[in-house]
Amino acid sequence: MSLLIDRIGELFTADPDRRTDGGILRDAAIVADGDQIAWIGPSAEAPEADERLDAGGRAVIPGFVDSHTHIVFAGDRSAEFAARMSGEPYTGGGIRTTVAATRAATDEQLLHNALHEHADMTRQGTTTVEIKSGYGLTVADEARSLRIARRLTTETTFLGAHTVPAGADPDEYTALVCGDMLDACAPHAKWIDVFCERGAFDGDQARAVLTAGAKAGLALRVHANQLTFGPGVRLAVELGAASADHCTHLTDADVDALASGSTVATLLPGAEFSTRSPYPDARRLLDAGVRVALATDCNPGSSYTGSMAFCIALAVREMGMTPAEAVAAATAGGAAALRRDDVGRLAVGASADLVVLDAPSHVHLAYRPGVPLVWNVVRRGTLLRPRRSSEE
Amino acid sequence: MSLLIDRIGELFTADPDRRTDGGILRDAAIVADGDQIAWIGPSAEAPEADERLDAGGRAVIPGFVDSHTHIVFAGDRSAEFAARMSGEPYTGGGIRTTVAATRAATDEQLLHNALHEHADMTRQGTTTVEIKSGYGLTVADEARSLRIARRLTTETTFLGAHTVPAGADPDEYTALVCGDMLDACAPHAKWIDVFCERGAFDGDQARAVLTAGAKAGLALRVHANQLTFGPGVRLAVELGAASADHCTHLTDADVDALASGSTVATLLPGAEFSTRSPYPDARRLLDAGVRVALATDCNPGSSYTGSMAFCIALAVREMGMTPAEAVAAATAGGAAALRRDDVGRLAVGASADLVVLDAPSHVHLAYRPGVPLVWNVVRRGTLLRPRRSSEE
Ligand SMILES: [Zn+2]
Ligand SMILES: [Zn+2]
Repeated sequence: MSLLIDRIGELFTADPDRRTDGGILRDAAIVADGDQIAWIGPSAEAPEADERLDAGGRAVIPGFVDSHTHIVFAGDRSAEFAARMSGEPYTGGGIRTTVAATRAATDEQLLHNALHEHADMTRQGTTTVEIKSGYGLTVADEARSLRIARRLTTETTFLGAHTVPAGADPDEYTALVCGDMLDACAPHAKWIDVFCERGAFDGDQARAVLTAGAKAGLALRVHANQLTFGPGVRLAVELGAASADHCTHLTDADVDALASGSTVATLLPGAEFSTRSPYPDARRLLDAGVRVALATDCNPGSSYTGSMAFCIALAVREMGMTPAEAVAAATAGGAAALRRDDVGRLAVGASADLVVLDAPSHVHLAYRPGVPLVWNVVRRGTLLRPRRSSEE
Repeated sequence: MSLLIDRIGELFTADPDRRTDGGILRDAAIVADGDQIAWIGPSAEAPEADERLDAGGRAVIPGFVDSHTHIVFAGDRSAEFAARMSGEPYTGGGIRTTVAATRAATDEQLLHNALHEHADMTRQGTTTVEIKSGYGLTVADEARSLRIARRLTTETTFLGAHTVPAGADPDEYTALVCGDMLDACAPHAKWIDVFCERGAFDGDQARAVLTAGAKAGLALRVHANQLTFGPGVRLAVELGAASADHCTHLTDADVDALASGSTVATLLPGAEFSTRSPYPDARRLLDAGVRVALATDCNPGSSYTGSMAFCIALAVREMGMTPAEAVAAATAGGAAALRRDDVGRLAVGASADLVVLDAPSHVHLAYRPGVPLVWNVVRRGTLLRPRRSSEE
């Protein structure tokens, strides 16, 4: 099966190989053959295909790559949210509420919740998603969270080191994460992650977790420098992690380390929005030459949103990014944070994952905040709403 | 035709007559008969009806009342937005770009644009909308904008005094607004409004416009104190305007005036979001006893969003409102700003306008920012998505 989308007003490719035109084509068309992009060019020169979608002048962007989510969970923390919005600071302590609800849930409930959230995200334009464990915190509960996550994506991350469970000794728990828990989880995970933060895991504990994970064949990512300054970012760069996530509190040495290494800085403004915290300074990172990604951090405690469009609007309003930089960070940037180049950009040979916006330009994602602008989604070559082309 | 919605997990009535339970019912049901609410009570005691929607534990809130929009326009200002987000301050000068595009558009184009935006707003839960003129600025163009607005709503506002057209003398233009333009527009309008602001219309000019409008039988509302301190808010209160809109820069005397009068303070955080300006202090107003409304200010220059949910999330994040206060301001508050009590609240005899959220609580509108949470909408007793009840 092949699919032609023509009369694209603006094709935002996010393809770094297209430097001469800024990666943006006008009056373009794109052809998917099976699950890959087979052709990109002027609309007037487009070849025929089995199926055709007339974009009617709308903009097309790559499907969003959400490289940081925690969507295997049970329970609701809206009461905690409402209390925090009345003045209580976010300390991260509420994670344990979700841990208790997640442990108490059946596999079916956890899968149902994750599928529901994943479907919402897809409707909002996300075509590649990373999912972490981290609300189990026992060998069995972490492993089953990852088995459930694996049903939805290949980008699964073992985050047993999310928080130290209530009553546990931090060093003993770290040893468990590096030992039996890792053994049980590694078969279901591609990545390992650790929350390196005051009150969670310190630099030595984080190093132990990441080193053990690497030995078990997992690639590395780090929750770093969210709430305070700390060693997380430099540790991520030193160990060659694909991504250091949050990056809200950075010294010049942290920025220099990111600029000189291969670690992507993944910014998660939904967390700052929902915890009323200062936003990371994306402009500073971009100006220093750091590769930046945007992701949602979707989780029930500190950022219960799966909307990449919302994160783009925040990045432009609050973090000094241009709309083009923000959309690139939410697509190609997220792919880089997952060490992927087959998603997050529109190029021949890449995965046929794209979003048709009900708007003439990618700028509208920031210009029209809160408005559902996703007109249609193509994931692995398949239209989410097959008959949308017949509508106005 | 009657419609029963039962198994409502949380019914957020926004009804000031229900003080004892905070206006919130659990395990409730609601019956619409024709276009009015006929019954509210416990789900187990609900009467039968011609049609039934099982809310499945979801929350129900009143349909949003968006009391401040400018959706009769043509053209796009995304380039201006992108430039502003790169550091240029908002001066309001861009209105003239939209005026030129609006004048050049056909009636059909303007109606098509407004209908498209209105349909988007309805899908996002808005069931009552006010629409202003203000992008015509000639007798003929203002009158036709209002004729088009009247096709969509009874809440039409003559805003000839939106800005002084390029090249015109401010006093001469004010006299035109108060004379021939008012004569041509009053038959199509319920309200008159003026942008009382440095660079637009000063206190004397605004008073002239409002006084002339009142003599022509129009009720009053004022764009006041958006960009600078000024006389707008006190003028609105003095003349008994239904609403003073924006209220971003308020002295203590302004707050006292609002608290002692009957004028609603309508806050428009979408404008502060999209112009990167400081937000109004809703907490200060609420604590002083001022009645507060939230609206979108939907317009292509300074706030191109029709999402009341987005405004609620901003009000909670940025303006010190609790989720309950913000949802009430977006429903009953908007109704008060239009001097209506038949919409914006769920009570027997009120208009059957409501939103079923895909969430268990109104809190989720702030807790899940950017996420489309509207599961179904009832407008004047009619379901927007009639078959949604058969889905999960
Ligand atoms: Zn996270
Ligand atoms: Zn306005």
